Amino acid sequence: MISLPQSLRRIIKELAELPSIGPRQATRIAFHLVSKGSQRIAGLSSSLKELSNIKTCKACYFIFDSAGDLCEICANPQRDQTLIMVVEKETDLISLENTNKYKGRYFILGEMPKTGLLEDWQKERLASLKKSILNLPGKVAKEIILALNPTSIGDFHASILIRELADLTPKLSRLGRGLPSGGEIEFADDETLGSALQSRG
Amino acid sequence: MISLPQSLRRIIKELAELPSIGPRQATRIAFHLVSKGSQRIAGLSSSLKELSNIKTCKACYFIFDSAGDLCEICANPQRDQTLIMVVEKETDLISLENTNKYKGRYFILGEMPKTGLLEDWQKERLASLKKSILNLPGKVAKEIILALNPTSIGDFHASILIRELADLTPKLSRLGRGLPSGGEIEFADDETLGSALQSRG
Repeated sequence: MISLPQSLRRIIKELAELPSIGPRQATRIAFHLVSKGSQRIAGLSSSLKELSNIKTCKACYFIFDSAGDLCEICANPQRDQTLIMVVEKETDLISLENTNKYKGRYFILGEMPKTGLLEDWQKERLASLKKSILNLPGKVAKEIILALNPTSIGDFHASILIRELADLTPKLSRLGRGLPSGGEIEFADDETLGSALQSRG
Repeated sequence: MISLPQSLRRIIKELAELPSIGPRQATRIAFHLVSKGSQRIAGLSSSLKELSNIKTCKACYFIFDSAGDLCEICANPQRDQTLIMVVEKETDLISLENTNKYKGRYFILGEMPKTGLLEDWQKERLASLKKSILNLPGKVAKEIILALNPTSIGDFHASILIRELADLTPKLSRLGRGLPSGGEIEFADDETLGSALQSRG
């Protein structure tokens, strides 16, 4: 076996720990970085360091870098604070927010473990959500939307969250199911077509 | 559109420029890093910085971090300096070296452009290879192996390199073609089976 420099081996190991990067891709990226030279590497290194300025919103756990404790959305008085959408990932929030169709606030719970057993930090997040709802006038949220994936594992996760959140709102909803825009009926699966029939209008 | 912190946007952009990472995966990785906290980010940032200690071998362009101008292989007096294997990528060199079947030296030309037109830096590398061969006793290499992919684009690239290197060696070879070990005849394509028949023994 050829011995690679230790610094290269370390960066390959660290890259391979990032989401959806395997050891082979990590090796390719590491060699790519080395071939780009020290200036490019220093640039990426300092860009990374600047990430540590990013804060996490005390209310919804989205990221932000402005002053205060709250992100842009939670700090916005025009957003309905009694309408809450629970999402798993920051990227889900971004996709939903980019529709420009939602005027409530979000809550990032983190990716649900496959087992359905919430991690301790997720329990802490849920506790803080409950506390914030109990601080609302009336002590309930108008509606909580569970924006989980429309899959059977998403349904399972939703059933767990419904148990946790049922006392905090009169209306627990999920995102509507049906045909994706731009799709064709011919290629839709049974489940999707069934949902599309049910949610017709 | 939601506005992300500038430092996050910058790192997403830089990550998306790495080989085989798209913008969506770059975004996921960036959020993953932020969620891992500043200690982890600082760790990756400093690991990256240490990459700049890595040097490139003056002879074969492989990387190394020991003293001197030559990598482990080129500096090894037990390797046959008159037997040269031309590879495109560092990772090709690693795979071939790990077979423990080769006792010559390597030469990294960089990935061949699809057009077959060598980049200027590749022309410089080839010029340095030619110079090093002309410094050998007899002014020729015993053999030059073109370790390019066994594909039609690899064949095309080989034809270009044969033109460049024909004067420098009496023997220009390519890696043998045939059935991959562990494969099944039933699933082999015509081209592979044809090569396997030709190279039988």
